[in-house]
Amino acid sequence: MKIDKLCGERFKEKPSDCVIDSHALMVRGGYMKGVANGIYSNYMPLRRITRKIENIIREEMDAIDGQEVMFPVVMPASLWSESGRYESIGSEMARFEDRNGTPMVLGMTHEEAAVHLVREYANSYTKYPFMIYQVQTKFRDEGRPRAGLIRVREFTMKDAYSFHTSQEDLERYYAICYDAYNRIFARCGVPEVITVQSDSGMMGGSISHEYMLLTPIGEDTLAICNDCDYRANMEAADSIINNVCEGEDAPLQEVHTPDIHTIEDICEFLKTPLEESCKAVVYQKNMTDEYVVVFIRGDLDVNETKLTNYIKEEIHPGEIVDGCGLFAGFIGPVGMDREKFTVIFDKSLENTHNLSCGANKMDYHYTGLKITRDVGDVEFVDVAKIKEGGICPKCGKPSIKLSRGIEVGNIFQLGTKYTKSMGMQYLDSEGNLQYPIMGCYGIGVGRLAASVCEAHHDDYGPIWPISIAPWHVELCCLRADDEECKGISDKLYDEMMADRMEVLYDDRNIRPGAMFSDADLIGAPIRVVVSPRNLKEGVCEVVSRDKTLNEKVPVENVIAFVKEEIAKRLAECK
Amino acid sequence: MKIDKLCGERFKEKPSDCVIDSHALMVRGGYMKGVANGIYSNYMPLRRITRKIENIIREEMDAIDGQEVMFPVVMPASLWSESGRYESIGSEMARFEDRNGTPMVLGMTHEEAAVHLVREYANSYTKYPFMIYQVQTKFRDEGRPRAGLIRVREFTMKDAYSFHTSQEDLERYYAICYDAYNRIFARCGVPEVITVQSDSGMMGGSISHEYMLLTPIGEDTLAICNDCDYRANMEAADSIINNVCEGEDAPLQEVHTPDIHTIEDICEFLKTPLEESCKAVVYQKNMTDEYVVVFIRGDLDVNETKLTNYIKEEIHPGEIVDGCGLFAGFIGPVGMDREKFTVIFDKSLENTHNLSCGANKMDYHYTGLKITRDVGDVEFVDVAKIKEGGICPKCGKPSIKLSRGIEVGNIFQLGTKYTKSMGMQYLDSEGNLQYPIMGCYGIGVGRLAASVCEAHHDDYGPIWPISIAPWHVELCCLRADDEECKGISDKLYDEMMADRMEVLYDDRNIRPGAMFSDADLIGAPIRVVVSPRNLKEGVCEVVSRDKTLNEKVPVENVIAFVKEEIAKRLAECK
Repeated sequence: MKIDKLCGERFKEKPSDCVIDSHALMVRGGYMKGVANGIYSNYMPLRRITRKIENIIREEMDAIDGQEVMFPVVMPASLWSESGRYESIGSEMARFEDRNGTPMVLGMTHEEAAVHLVREYANSYTKYPFMIYQVQTKFRDEGRPRAGLIRVREFTMKDAYSFHTSQEDLERYYAICYDAYNRIFARCGVPEVITVQSDSGMMGGSISHEYMLLTPIGEDTLAICNDCDYRANMEAADSIINNVCEGEDAPLQEVHTPDIHTIEDICEFLKTPLEESCKAVVYQKNMTDEYVVVFIRGDLDVNETKLTNYIKEEIHPGEIVDGCGLFAGFIGPVGMDREKFTVIFDKSLENTHNLSCGANKMDYHYTGLKITRDVGDVEFVDVAKIKEGGICPKCGKPSIKLSRGIEVGNIFQLGTKYTKSMGMQYLDSEGNLQYPIMGCYGIGVGRLAASVCEAHHDDYGPIWPISIAPWHVELCCLRADDEECKGISDKLYDEMMADRMEVLYDDRNIRPGAMFSDADLIGAPIRVVVSPRNLKEGVCEVVSRDKTLNEKVPVENVIAFVKEEIAKRLAECK
Repeated sequence: MKIDKLCGERFKEKPSDCVIDSHALMVRGGYMKGVANGIYSNYMPLRRITRKIENIIREEMDAIDGQEVMFPVVMPASLWSESGRYESIGSEMARFEDRNGTPMVLGMTHEEAAVHLVREYANSYTKYPFMIYQVQTKFRDEGRPRAGLIRVREFTMKDAYSFHTSQEDLERYYAICYDAYNRIFARCGVPEVITVQSDSGMMGGSISHEYMLLTPIGEDTLAICNDCDYRANMEAADSIINNVCEGEDAPLQEVHTPDIHTIEDICEFLKTPLEESCKAVVYQKNMTDEYVVVFIRGDLDVNETKLTNYIKEEIHPGEIVDGCGLFAGFIGPVGMDREKFTVIFDKSLENTHNLSCGANKMDYHYTGLKITRDVGDVEFVDVAKIKEGGICPKCGKPSIKLSRGIEVGNIFQLGTKYTKSMGMQYLDSEGNLQYPIMGCYGIGVGRLAASVCEAHHDDYGPIWPISIAPWHVELCCLRADDEECKGISDKLYDEMMADRMEVLYDDRNIRPGAMFSDADLIGAPIRVVVSPRNLKEGVCEVVSRDKTLNEKVPVENVIAFVKEEIAKRLAECK
């Protein structure tokens, strides 16, 4: 490929709407162009990268006996009604009516389609286990697309579904897939991707893991133990609080606190630490607007994922209106109407006394709260966010560190959620009907490309691992107007093409600086520079984008040298 | 791959809803499963076939300097409004509103997206010509999906778009692409695909060709000259009628014809040939329901595509209601209100006299019609279907033969329709702004797979060309319960797998007949049969699905023999 016909503009200025480096570099390098919010067209360099990623994924999926299939993008709503998700999934699912008025949806995931494909076929235990997967376009109408390819509305995804006759067999295969995923990320040049326990969200099921690339621009917060191997998405991390109730119980006492509305203010007013307060956080249920009041220790925050899982309803931050029975800034557990509101006590309040809290009337707080004495017998549940320095749920040491990460893949143990709801059964070896147990396994291809760029770039452009680089080599003819320089460059290009090498050739009559800037943005691992100055010594410069290589190689050896370097680097990515 | 874990049911009975062989065989062979009308999931065998086809297409597109890109499936309606097609395309385009109420469409073709991707980039003549293409899912809400993968609603398509600075350059590249398409079809095993001139339909532009696989089950009718190289889709074929007006003009005379409503009946009643009649065919415009009355020689039919192109409006067959001014069965040109109705005279009526026709009143016809005398000065335009034995528009001989064909690809010269409407311009070498000229080039991947099956099958299953076969080899262990037979089969399988051969292994403990039926449905070109009887002689049977090969090969030579056979057959597909 000659760069003068490569579609896509490359430029220097950082686009103002790009908040992360990978997005800015991929726009500046002519990789992608926005078509609508969260919807992009890909230019050739990005398409070459995603195809290489897709093929690495395919090889690893085939290696663990995956069968590549293809599900539709457009599905009838009736299929999603079978599982109940047509109703339970909200506005992130795109819906339309076809020309006959039949309700249709755009696939954002394909559990229903997977069960549909195999439910008649897999009617006997002898046909298990098996795994089917596809690489296909999906559409998820995200509320807040952001960060280029990190969070989009339309994306290419590899999604895989395995079917088993026992939990043990699922776990066996889950472990195999876990390893395959690690190989995929290593081969794509991001071996540093880690796994964390995750929340299963709308997928159903229990055990699940996410593959995370640690980066400050990540959307997810991860709880990682410094002392053991505990790693979890904060959404799924247990918060362990070991309160010790020391000293005398003080009496419950009303305090006049005009103009004091936040828990921080009341603690400052009372000169007590935040840990000795009981904070109220108010939500409303999406369906009914009913209030959900969470009481939690003043120094902690509510983990909305755990809260949602516990009450089994979608929620949003509550808006406290006049006459609703709640007094913003003065909400407390004593005398709270537990018939009228859903009231939750976080575990951080277990074994506590002498807390400050709202008094459920304007301008008053209490001190001396002891919940078991002043409220009664309540259930304490864990709906708190784990915090930096918090106690590790696995080893029990206060060694939790919080980091940010991008989720580049996930694996779920789905159980029988879909096979039961969609009536998929098989005859076991004793002739009894059983529901198969499913696992599912996803990787977003475009997001992985962007994540690799995020992990491997400098100020000038991406530094692509050779396994997924758009081209292995960029050949730069520094002086297209110099006959010898152009002649030798052309000859090298022809030889490389004849050798089926992946080469991008720049023979434009432009300044070396502009040529190198473009080459940096394309990020080919190996660069061959042909210049009149070097040709006087009979050599070309061969340098690598990652700066580990910088050699002058005799012209006649260049092809062999570059081929060896490519082979070496490719072997390192295996 | 072992067949006992291959997802998909294979069975013997022809499904009742399959009207063509390829559909029936692909359902019977476990290639596909319907999800909704015209929407299918693909099992592994079909996905392997379509991936191979996609890769052949990619190689040929890359070889003519195509740049693989990717456009979105979901696009904002505003993009389609730019070209005017959001309004002009009807219910075949799926539309929905996203969560923010923005109107979106599903891409059924990507001219708008192609122009969008390159219109800022390609701002100078130096960047031309170039071609971009993608392989992507499309959705077209067909009114009548049918025939399995031949006419579906969701499909994978390779669509390419080239951009040029002159008509000459477009024509140069169009010829290159024309050849590349021929190579693609040859490599996919259907070198018999022919090109025909076609109507450009909603794509705009003038010159276009379709690639047709001739088969009686084809949806298109083709006009092919037996004497020269003229080949056209009937939709686009000129109808040549050379009337000679012999003898005396008879006077126009009213005839009472009660209960005679069709042109055939009136000609029989008058004992005159159909060629001496003037038939009326009535349509209505889709937008306004205004009547369009076409007069045409009684032996010919109206070509609705040509009619639509001429009046530049979509039409449907007319429904004649009381009081509309038309008398069904008695419509004629004399006294027809040409202000009230759109009246068209087909060229087949030029130079005619002494015709019978309707008299525009109940139960009366005329004889002796001479249009120029009795109606006046009218324009004769060609809106007739060419007929079997008709005159070739190219060589002028009456040698037209009508055949049926499946369209497996098409190429269009689009001109500036999209670049003009979407404001894409470049500076030419003299510094003037110009609109680039476009070509577009499509191949439906699934339809091509089905067409190959249609062209290459027998009663027992598809006979896949090796270039796109799901597996090259099927290894059949005829007696899984025989230790030696199973052992040698397993060993062969392991060796083939280690050698990265594409092998499907059947070691189920089933009857040979059932095993061979399944193998016929899978259609792997080479079959290796291991049986106790042959092992007594130390050989395996190696046979080909196309019955050209049937040899007993010593066990120790089987791998080498099969590899050579595969290599030979693959080379033939190049």
